[in-house]
Amino acid sequence: MPSDRTRVRRLPERGHYDRATIDAILDAMPIAHVGYVLDGAPIVTPTLQWREGDHVYWHGSAASRMLRKVDGAEACLTVTILDGMVLARSAFHHSANYRSVMLLGTAHAVTDPAEKAARLERFVNAVYPGRWDILRPMTEQELKGTSVLGMPIDEASAKIRQGPPIDDDEDVSLDIWAGVIPLNYSVGAPIPEKHVREGSLPPSHVTNFRIG
Amino acid sequence: MPSDRTRVRRLPERGHYDRATIDAILDAMPIAHVGYVLDGAPIVTPTLQWREGDHVYWHGSAASRMLRKVDGAEACLTVTILDGMVLARSAFHHSANYRSVMLLGTAHAVTDPAEKAARLERFVNAVYPGRWDILRPMTEQELKGTSVLGMPIDEASAKIRQGPPIDDDEDVSLDIWAGVIPLNYSVGAPIPEKHVREGSLPPSHVTNFRIG
Repeated sequence: MPSDRTRVRRLPERGHYDRATIDAILDAMPIAHVGYVLDGAPIVTPTLQWREGDHVYWHGSAASRMLRKVDGAEACLTVTILDGMVLARSAFHHSANYRSVMLLGTAHAVTDPAEKAARLERFVNAVYPGRWDILRPMTEQELKGTSVLGMPIDEASAKIRQGPPIDDDEDVSLDIWAGVIPLNYSVGAPIPEKHVREGSLPPSHVTNFRIG
Repeated sequence: MPSDRTRVRRLPERGHYDRATIDAILDAMPIAHVGYVLDGAPIVTPTLQWREGDHVYWHGSAASRMLRKVDGAEACLTVTILDGMVLARSAFHHSANYRSVMLLGTAHAVTDPAEKAARLERFVNAVYPGRWDILRPMTEQELKGTSVLGMPIDEASAKIRQGPPIDDDEDVSLDIWAGVIPLNYSVGAPIPEKHVREGSLPPSHVTNFRIG
């Protein structure tokens, strides 16, 4: 059930509160924007997020002043996938097609080293299935240098708009082009780093990579 | 000059503070995430933004409880363009290529009807050059029903990462594929709304539409 804060009030038909819908959007898009209140003011930073069961996680440098302040603080994590631009015959009915999720809650730092390592393994494998096992193993220093923050998927809502523009009835006969410009992320040919052995093929977690 | 709040502290070489860099990112990506503090908690909402000179603007329904509370409140508007995924030979050096802008300031509502209409005209034409003049004209009721919020581009920073992964020297000879997966928004064939006259071609602001 939506909380008073997550219920979609404007255009309530766009609101969804079931975990399947929420999880599908979180799993499709690693980029999130996380909001905190620092010294009374809002700060919104882009970051990569990943989901593990009933939690989302994000990470950063342990040297980050901001991330240290955020442990135990209220946060809002928002993920947005832009699917298209919607052009109507009046300015007012222009819109965008999108899928978004907003999560509210208290951010907590993952401090136990073994748990933190497990969360980071999941992060790598969530984005690039199987990659963790082929990497040079993480060092203790790297683990110490990384902060992992998490939040339960509890107070959450999804908002989705799709489909054509909805013009006023009296406008649909006007000879103005209206419709949708579809958008999606396109994945280019992988660019090997210069030391990669010539002829070495990228693994399937690279060639199959998709987002959105 | 960056303020104490906008100076990029982590990886300062990624920070940029010149208006040309900031404006280019704002102009390339209409999607923004705006953060507010409501009842003490952060809220981050996706919205479309547009720039006009030294200000950014965003809009919403005048019936939105949230937008009414935001006039005069501190806000953080962040725009992020994801350009690629960066795969290194250790988990620690994985990254993403991106261009982002963070603006801090006080949001103000544009209340004068003529000014609000001018801002909305700019919004439509910023996204779709020339479209305003071919649309069914905006009604007084539609103008009243729309809230426009603005913020000066004053306390602002850009953050950019590009290029290959930077592995530890001792890792570059490992036989692990490393490199960049390039990402960009691809624009699909426009889908006309069902009442569009058969054979009617989309205008150039549709066929030339690009973001990112």
